[in-house]
Amino acid sequence: LSDPVLAHLDGQRGAILERLLELVRAPSIGADPAYADGMETARRLLLRQLSAMGLDRVQLLEAGGQPAVYGEWLGAPDRPTLIVYGHYDVQPPDPVEKWASPPFEPTLRNGRLYGRGVSDDKAPTAIALETLAGFLAVEGRLPVNVKVLVEGEEETGSASLHALLETHRDLLEADAVISADGGRWRADLPTVNVGTRGNCGFEVTVTTAMKDLHSGRYGGAVPNACHAMAALLASLRTPDGAIAVEDFYDGIEPPPAAETIAMAEIPFDEQAFYEGLGAEPYGERGFTTLERLWLRPTLDVNGMWGGYTGAGSKTVIPSEAHAKLTMRLVPGQDPGRVQDAVRRHLQRHCPRGARLAFGPPRGASAAYEVSPEHPLLLAVEEALEATLGRKPLRVRMGATLPLTAIVSEMLGLDTVMFSFATSDEDYHAPNEFFRLSSLDEGLAGWVRLLRRLGGQEPEDYARFRRGTPGESRPSA
Amino acid sequence: LSDPVLAHLDGQRGAILERLLELVRAPSIGADPAYADGMETARRLLLRQLSAMGLDRVQLLEAGGQPAVYGEWLGAPDRPTLIVYGHYDVQPPDPVEKWASPPFEPTLRNGRLYGRGVSDDKAPTAIALETLAGFLAVEGRLPVNVKVLVEGEEETGSASLHALLETHRDLLEADAVISADGGRWRADLPTVNVGTRGNCGFEVTVTTAMKDLHSGRYGGAVPNACHAMAALLASLRTPDGAIAVEDFYDGIEPPPAAETIAMAEIPFDEQAFYEGLGAEPYGERGFTTLERLWLRPTLDVNGMWGGYTGAGSKTVIPSEAHAKLTMRLVPGQDPGRVQDAVRRHLQRHCPRGARLAFGPPRGASAAYEVSPEHPLLLAVEEALEATLGRKPLRVRMGATLPLTAIVSEMLGLDTVMFSFATSDEDYHAPNEFFRLSSLDEGLAGWVRLLRRLGGQEPEDYARFRRGTPGESRPSA
Repeated sequence: LSDPVLAHLDGQRGAILERLLELVRAPSIGADPAYADGMETARRLLLRQLSAMGLDRVQLLEAGGQPAVYGEWLGAPDRPTLIVYGHYDVQPPDPVEKWASPPFEPTLRNGRLYGRGVSDDKAPTAIALETLAGFLAVEGRLPVNVKVLVEGEEETGSASLHALLETHRDLLEADAVISADGGRWRADLPTVNVGTRGNCGFEVTVTTAMKDLHSGRYGGAVPNACHAMAALLASLRTPDGAIAVEDFYDGIEPPPAAETIAMAEIPFDEQAFYEGLGAEPYGERGFTTLERLWLRPTLDVNGMWGGYTGAGSKTVIPSEAHAKLTMRLVPGQDPGRVQDAVRRHLQRHCPRGARLAFGPPRGASAAYEVSPEHPLLLAVEEALEATLGRKPLRVRMGATLPLTAIVSEMLGLDTVMFSFATSDEDYHAPNEFFRLSSLDEGLAGWVRLLRRLGGQEPEDYARFRRGTPGESRPSA
Repeated sequence: LSDPVLAHLDGQRGAILERLLELVRAPSIGADPAYADGMETARRLLLRQLSAMGLDRVQLLEAGGQPAVYGEWLGAPDRPTLIVYGHYDVQPPDPVEKWASPPFEPTLRNGRLYGRGVSDDKAPTAIALETLAGFLAVEGRLPVNVKVLVEGEEETGSASLHALLETHRDLLEADAVISADGGRWRADLPTVNVGTRGNCGFEVTVTTAMKDLHSGRYGGAVPNACHAMAALLASLRTPDGAIAVEDFYDGIEPPPAAETIAMAEIPFDEQAFYEGLGAEPYGERGFTTLERLWLRPTLDVNGMWGGYTGAGSKTVIPSEAHAKLTMRLVPGQDPGRVQDAVRRHLQRHCPRGARLAFGPPRGASAAYEVSPEHPLLLAVEEALEATLGRKPLRVRMGATLPLTAIVSEMLGLDTVMFSFATSDEDYHAPNEFFRLSSLDEGLAGWVRLLRRLGGQEPEDYARFRRGTPGESRPSA
């Protein structure tokens, strides 16, 4: 540990873990208003941490939704300014009964820390913040200027992030974004993400009568909302997994040729992948599994319900059925247009006797891809290689980091993902965990990255800013 | 009130209503094991009532499921013996939030008593029992021999009624059954039910992976249990409401020609029917609405669920989805065969990548129709005409009274329905109610019916027993 900041962080490991546990204990489920207190607790802990490490202008940024936590250090006027991004909100823990330990009582087992949100994105965010704290404690300064932005709406689609960036445009002026969200693809292979899928979605309700009806008294002569919903959902996909919605695939741009070629060489054990999931291979014809995961859009029912779902039987004809849909998008697709296309399809296929209503859309964001020559991307690759002893492969991720498309579109900033979560860590599912070994790798990686960025030449700094807002491919 | 028994009952009206309220307060939801106490309370109240009125051999009859309550009066050896049937179990009250007053706190509003189970079947059962009590109090005897059987599994398909009749075959020997269940078709028209549909059903689960998966990380390359379930459910029906299951319609026997002719003359305001439900006309082509309701079988999803159904959004690919199905049957259909046909259909249509599992079947029973000349049916028609001032129309009911088919098959007994519930009383739905005016009509009707049965000639008695067990059409 020749680096004095890294040596300091090593000595602080117990305190770092304790702060992380406290953050995980806050049930910060942004999707559910019942957990407003948990969101509040998480914000309070982060505000305290940013102030304690010595950041300036520590505050909440509000724009109608969940506030974001902000703090800055701008003591190096001749160096670039980076937004360091993370999020404090987490997915709902349902089904709670499938957790081996309670989701908000973080538990260490076999070198893994279990708890909702620990991998997505509390530990990765904590790694970034603790590294900044380490530099400030040991050296009294950071290698580059930093604006910390920890948002509270990532898991609900960053619905007010647009408004937040608009409201605080001056405060958030920067040269690029480095994200502590956007996990590592695999535990066995160093990788760096160069693109994300976007997403959009909404809830749909089918109504067939003014109340549930007795299946004996009315059966055979009235429509059934569950059957109507089933027919609607079935109409959205072809049997082989393609999406049957007209205009859905419009505008999709193929990835750079070099990337497609490189993708074919990525080691990927398809059999082990499916065996690990207990699932069978599935998907759109004519594409490999990695292409389906990274380069093709999706449409998934995230949940559906209607009628009697309790114990035993209740012989009703349900009058209402509900479904939650999300679509993952690839470069060239516009979230609003895709949403409209799916709504139009549902209206067109709505069975006789059924009425449709759409819930408010979830936060939407376009797909994103970083420029292959971005100096921040190159610095991340060097830091990872130095930390993990192997040059990372460039990969994409099928998931969405709304920030990437939004800052590209609004502020003209590129984002590079530098998260130490690993995507097998069951985020969005029961028993989410984070590898303790990733905590050490993460701290080492962040220290190296910041030093490297601080040591770059002024001509490199100039290349941090990609261009004018809206110039990126996906925002088209 | 020239009849002394009726005069006595009139004087007891407050006490009768109080006993009914107490019975409705017992949350006797047989389908849900969490309500075992409510079932127990209902049985205790009934045992007390049967003992207090002076019945003999008051006891619980058990056969593995919910016990039935039994009591008898056999003091007229030269007269026929009737089983007086009712049930104390009720449907689950979900969705509870749609009730204007709590389902198990019976509430009087505008001449109606609101509460779960009040119409189906606690008030109609109470009317029968209070009439028996009235005769015993005033005259010390009943006009005919009576065996009271109040079961606890009607709402769950009378799963152990077969075993119960087998175990207590001697105790339950009788000449016919008169049922306090099997409601009146309409509030505006005196009717008598001459047939019921049967039913059967089961729960089905679709599994596509060993756990829910992140829709970003896995979307596009793994099957989705909700989509698979939607495709399965959609495959069960044609778009115009016919059932697409092979062999489903096998063996159906047309009703007697006289009945079909009479049916065409039943006044039925189709527009008002659908407007009252807030639903559009629907159903199998080539049949009238009444035919669809009474003479054609059905297949309905009673409930379906899978994935995230809470507030906001959770971007999972569900690994499990569930549905509850019931089928209503008409004469000639065998419940076991229909169930097998639907299961076979689901297996055949199961999408690639999905696995099916079937829950245990709910109690099943065949359809039933009473002989058009049965003396008990004729006596019921006379009692109704005398009470309501108008000759009742013969109708069928689309619902199921499992007892009818089971006693026909096992004991060779006919059942005539004599319930004072009305089928618009939202049983099986929120805000179930019973008209207080029906309480008075019911008591008057039962007093008249019992007097009439007691006054019949011995040659009529001989015609009570229909024949040997298993001879009826529907049990074929």
